[in-house]
Amino acid sequence: MKGSSIRTVAWSRDGIVLLDQRLLPARERYLHCRSAEDVARAIERMAVRGAPAIGVAAAMGLVLGAQRLASTSMPAFRRGIERLCRRFRATRPTAVNLFWAIERMRQVVASSDGNGAQLVRRLRREAGRIRDEDVAANRRMGAHGATLVPRTATVLTHCNAGALATAGYGTALGVVRAAHEAGKRVTVLASETRPILQGARLTAWELKRDRIPVRLITDNMAGYFLKKGDINLVVVGADRIAANGDVANKIGTYSVAVLARENSVPFYVAAPLSTIDLGTRTGEDIPIEHRDPHEVTSLGKQRIAPSGVDAENPAFDVTPARLVTAIITEAGVVRPPYRRALATLFRHSETVRGRTRPAPKMKKTPRRRRAASVRATRTARRHRR
Amino acid sequence: MKGSSIRTVAWSRDGIVLLDQRLLPARERYLHCRSAEDVARAIERMAVRGAPAIGVAAAMGLVLGAQRLASTSMPAFRRGIERLCRRFRATRPTAVNLFWAIERMRQVVASSDGNGAQLVRRLRREAGRIRDEDVAANRRMGAHGATLVPRTATVLTHCNAGALATAGYGTALGVVRAAHEAGKRVTVLASETRPILQGARLTAWELKRDRIPVRLITDNMAGYFLKKGDINLVVVGADRIAANGDVANKIGTYSVAVLARENSVPFYVAAPLSTIDLGTRTGEDIPIEHRDPHEVTSLGKQRIAPSGVDAENPAFDVTPARLVTAIITEAGVVRPPYRRALATLFRHSETVRGRTRPAPKMKKTPRRRRAASVRATRTARRHRR
Repeated sequence: MKGSSIRTVAWSRDGIVLLDQRLLPARERYLHCRSAEDVARAIERMAVRGAPAIGVAAAMGLVLGAQRLASTSMPAFRRGIERLCRRFRATRPTAVNLFWAIERMRQVVASSDGNGAQLVRRLRREAGRIRDEDVAANRRMGAHGATLVPRTATVLTHCNAGALATAGYGTALGVVRAAHEAGKRVTVLASETRPILQGARLTAWELKRDRIPVRLITDNMAGYFLKKGDINLVVVGADRIAANGDVANKIGTYSVAVLARENSVPFYVAAPLSTIDLGTRTGEDIPIEHRDPHEVTSLGKQRIAPSGVDAENPAFDVTPARLVTAIITEAGVVRPPYRRALATLFRHSETVRGRTRPAPKMKKTPRRRRAASVRATRTARRHRR
Repeated sequence: MKGSSIRTVAWSRDGIVLLDQRLLPARERYLHCRSAEDVARAIERMAVRGAPAIGVAAAMGLVLGAQRLASTSMPAFRRGIERLCRRFRATRPTAVNLFWAIERMRQVVASSDGNGAQLVRRLRREAGRIRDEDVAANRRMGAHGATLVPRTATVLTHCNAGALATAGYGTALGVVRAAHEAGKRVTVLASETRPILQGARLTAWELKRDRIPVRLITDNMAGYFLKKGDINLVVVGADRIAANGDVANKIGTYSVAVLARENSVPFYVAAPLSTIDLGTRTGEDIPIEHRDPHEVTSLGKQRIAPSGVDAENPAFDVTPARLVTAIITEAGVVRPPYRRALATLFRHSETVRGRTRPAPKMKKTPRRRRAASVRATRTARRHRR
């Protein structure tokens, strides 16, 4: 299927290749990563982005790191893996799939005996599983979500929660793809998603590639079309869902949710269980990444604001659970009240393996959490220079 | 005062000069218009923009047209003026100040005897009055509006309703300037306002010039900062206010209004009486200009979406009166219920001269009005090519 033909992250002979999403749609260029550090930087600089995709990339990046450590002593190998896990955790603070994938990889090392070469093989298998499970989860999510899409529908989405944001097929766009494949007449209205323009550059690109009708709008037009009655439903992805159903996602998602509620349009969030973090109590506990203001004052190489003008650049916002009509997961569609529904979902789901265990970074006090967020931002800025 | 030093529109020796707002902030270049047609094109292409400013520009452009007609016979002169009025009415459909200013100029010719040279002198005086009244109205509006601004305040604004959008001082930014001049500590959060980026390019530019603290955000961040409690009030301008208080303004204004209401932040509209059109019953009767989709798929000369992707480009939206906390005019601050309050305002205001009379174009049936909107858009597109 076309949707799966987009290779966001893949093994190569001597490392991994990432489709460099900063260059789309102008150029379809692959970035070759030969070390864990190459992958960590690719995540920070958003060559690869999207919560599930960065989880997969980090897992695969850890394999590259493990390969280099394979010939060291076992204590050195384990220390090295811990150091690499810390490095990957520091890349971006908001998407929980990153911490979840790192934790799965860490558990492989923590729970295994064997020599370096054996551990590397097991890590590589685990990274492969994380990637394959993601695609499978997206397809199941798509099937569940498609039932919520009318036979003829205009769907508003924000940012890119598509094949490019995952190991393939997509979360929000997986729902669109599944509805399209089921013969429904789906048109997507994609908001461009400033500052990085994931909607204009990535969502438009992958939908056009799959011949799914798409029209582009600026972010500030969503309200106009919701009020006009042109939109049947909103579907977005998520970077982290708290235990109470609060959703962290790309900046602007909260605004769309408020506007959808104001105009009685259903607002759905499509995300795998790996995005749901029962260890994060509410949205207030989710660290929000603040990125370089330069992303706002410029567009690509073009400066758009007068020099010396300050800008703010929160990369995510939190949509309160009360604005979310339903959460679409691979294990089914979950409706409010979310705290109970999500907990039940995890208890019943066979696919869950240690996912309810929150990543260590997420247990911090609000104060330390803020510090972590700032640190991640500084790191990101430093690397961009 | 610095705010007034920005000359949006001015007479020159052989025509009029407009600060070309398409080039700001990169270049501060003036556009010389030697004919009415030059001015009409400058309005269509948004070299001059902002409801009050295009009203002033059209009035001054009519003077240039009248000068060329001065030596013709009086019937030919009057026919020529009517033709020019039609030309200017077709430039942009939403802002009512344009139709209002044209109507004032038309009345000068309709109600005067005398030869061509005399009529040209009267038209030039009337255009000068329209310009001077606009600056004076903005200053009075600023004084009224400043009373609504706390001693220390962060003000969110959208688009540019500043000196650049008027004959000087500004409407929404006039309120900010007046509060600043009164010694209040005002910081402005300016949303960039895609697709044309009036916020990033123009609001940031003129506030920086006046040393009023300003920080830039993308349009989709407004909700984040409103929810966070960082914003004390929202002030925007308007392109047309209907008799019931519905407000047409730059696309995205409706979204900000909904988000302000959701977060209990007051939402103010600052506009002169010339923006209020009692002949337009409700917001549904306001024609919305749809501009070239190219403005959305590109930024400046940089293409941002894949080629062949469609886009929508409504340039304005309508904010329902129920979301507007108050309307700030030169005659005072008006609060709901607006239909009665606005009618009373016009009856009591000494500055009103024939303003309650709707411009002819505005009396059309919705169907013909839509046609007018489409025509204006096509004209604009043709000229841009």
